[in-house]
Amino acid sequence: MSVRTIGIIGGGQLARMMHAASIPLGLRIALLAEGPDVSAAQVVADVTVGDYTDPATVYAFAERCDVLTFDHEHVPPAILRGLIERGKGVHPGPDALLHAQDKVVMRERLSGLGVPCPAFAVVDGPRDLIAFGERTGWPVIAKTSRGGYDGKGVWKLDGPHNAGEPFAAPRPGVRILAEEFIDFSRELSVLVARRPSGEERVYPVTETVQTDGICTHTFTPAPGLSDEQEAEFERLALRIAAELDVTGILAVELMQRSDGTVVVNELAMRPHNTGHWSIDGAQTSQFENHLRAVADLPLGPTGTRQPHAAMVNVLGGANDDLLAAAAQVLAADPGARVQLYGKSVVPGRKVGHVTVVGDDASEVRRRAQAAADHLMGGQQ
Amino acid sequence: MSVRTIGIIGGGQLARMMHAASIPLGLRIALLAEGPDVSAAQVVADVTVGDYTDPATVYAFAERCDVLTFDHEHVPPAILRGLIERGKGVHPGPDALLHAQDKVVMRERLSGLGVPCPAFAVVDGPRDLIAFGERTGWPVIAKTSRGGYDGKGVWKLDGPHNAGEPFAAPRPGVRILAEEFIDFSRELSVLVARRPSGEERVYPVTETVQTDGICTHTFTPAPGLSDEQEAEFERLALRIAAELDVTGILAVELMQRSDGTVVVNELAMRPHNTGHWSIDGAQTSQFENHLRAVADLPLGPTGTRQPHAAMVNVLGGANDDLLAAAAQVLAADPGARVQLYGKSVVPGRKVGHVTVVGDDASEVRRRAQAAADHLMGGQQ
Repeated sequence: MSVRTIGIIGGGQLARMMHAASIPLGLRIALLAEGPDVSAAQVVADVTVGDYTDPATVYAFAERCDVLTFDHEHVPPAILRGLIERGKGVHPGPDALLHAQDKVVMRERLSGLGVPCPAFAVVDGPRDLIAFGERTGWPVIAKTSRGGYDGKGVWKLDGPHNAGEPFAAPRPGVRILAEEFIDFSRELSVLVARRPSGEERVYPVTETVQTDGICTHTFTPAPGLSDEQEAEFERLALRIAAELDVTGILAVELMQRSDGTVVVNELAMRPHNTGHWSIDGAQTSQFENHLRAVADLPLGPTGTRQPHAAMVNVLGGANDDLLAAAAQVLAADPGARVQLYGKSVVPGRKVGHVTVVGDDASEVRRRAQAAADHLMGGQQ
Repeated sequence: MSVRTIGIIGGGQLARMMHAASIPLGLRIALLAEGPDVSAAQVVADVTVGDYTDPATVYAFAERCDVLTFDHEHVPPAILRGLIERGKGVHPGPDALLHAQDKVVMRERLSGLGVPCPAFAVVDGPRDLIAFGERTGWPVIAKTSRGGYDGKGVWKLDGPHNAGEPFAAPRPGVRILAEEFIDFSRELSVLVARRPSGEERVYPVTETVQTDGICTHTFTPAPGLSDEQEAEFERLALRIAAELDVTGILAVELMQRSDGTVVVNELAMRPHNTGHWSIDGAQTSQFENHLRAVADLPLGPTGTRQPHAAMVNVLGGANDDLLAAAAQVLAADPGARVQLYGKSVVPGRKVGHVTVVGDDASEVRRRAQAAADHLMGGQQ
């Protein structure tokens, strides 16, 4: 029987944008949300408020769903296995998702596949970490194996004197991963959509700008890539998706050195901030292809609609009336595509984004930046 | 204060597609629906089930809304005036909407403005109707002044012997309008979006094919129009929108004679079937521009994304598993855009549509038709 109802665990903006994409497809969304008025709960018809770490809550929620997917990667693997035991489809499945949940698992697996990664080691304490730094050279990047996001749970350590920081607040089950510092010149992201039956589609490689660990800008296609590099990075992402048996969207974040070579930074297995441009810039958005993949429907084309797309995140700033600012932005630049997440403004919080598409790369950047600046800065 | 919550009266597919368009804008939708599982109620978070002809129901519903708009034209004018007395914005307003509710009012007003219309008369009985036919020539078109849609409430009368038909089932407050038969070669539609502050945008003129009174196909831009004709028909629609003070989307349906001249057939004041192509084919969809207009936000550009767009309606047919058929369609033609309305299949009922955009007009027609045929006909 085909999929009718997709359960989404987590009610953030990714679930919200998935819901918008579900409507044309005639799919139904059921949402397990953290609260009654979180971003996605404002727009979805069928909302259950509950704790995704409580097995009974998740299993009761899943009864109305044919298949489940996620707004975030934090659902415990044991619960995902319990869902599968109860006959539910889970996409991505727990064995794949573990590589987005645990950075040690991800590094070990990717290295085993011969995928370029920084040198890494699991370190048990400051002494171990210092030994790693002496071996690979300082600075060193340290990360918690689990639970980090948007720059949290990551340290850049200049030398042995900082080596205690990652161990200051230990958490059960969380290990510290030490990684060689990559002196990258920029970051890239490659998104793949993959169905349970194996059909895959890859989006054009995107350049992503991270500020304090938060994605702030993307430019698609990534400027200055040769056709060979574009093809190589796409093949790399497709191979990881297939080897890890990812279903839904996989985001492969890459660090690119000045010589053009790359190493994998992170994996995410859900629609990703670096793919938001696709709503207004691709023939099929990442949200639609995620749902198609999760429902095992044929995937849509991933090419760009216009030669260039620039996306700029709107982070909480001085302005707390986003809708009023959006009206000014749309008056000043009617072609700018503003997306608001329905979230209250908290400094630095992702509350929306702007995408501009067009023929001229620098022009779309400038317009997207101007629109986002206005949304963040308030009425000018 | 700016608009936060838009109330939509009526829960059909137009409200459903409005909801999808509302999500990026950060607007909230409240829905007054005919039942708990109608097309839009399946996807909207805030649903009230109630009777839109009951003033108390509508006024209670409106308390949570900043402004109200419609999925259909059937809300009684007295209720709309009551909403305005209670301080609510209503778009389109009752004075404008009356021209979409009552064909006699529409004909009298448009004729007064010098807009080309068929010769017409209000007829009180068969004798009156026969006199009209003798004066203008047979056949004659007779219509109920109110309540007709999708070919219902319309008669084509070949001669005096049929003149009793329109009077067989009289309804209170409903008059019979006799109109000169226009020997048109095709039908066109022009959509305008208009804000309360007067800003207007017009979509490219669309050719629309009606079968048994139901729109089945649209082709945008309408083939074979000269630049002068395109500009003339757009000006006509913009003028009607301004003169009638329409807010939201106005659809002006035209009949075009073989000599290229047109007369106005009908007006609709809400997103319209002849504008569904705009979801996948225009820079801003009619649903988004309707909401922007209703919320008095700046309107988005109405140009096409690709040179040609073909839309074919999916009417209920032999196939009752639309999602399974959609999977086959998307596999056969990944670029086809399928929109399903979440409605059960009833013969002849509008249950979805397909849009294809591209460079080649005949190719997009062929692909859209093939996809819709498959959805209607089932597995082949």
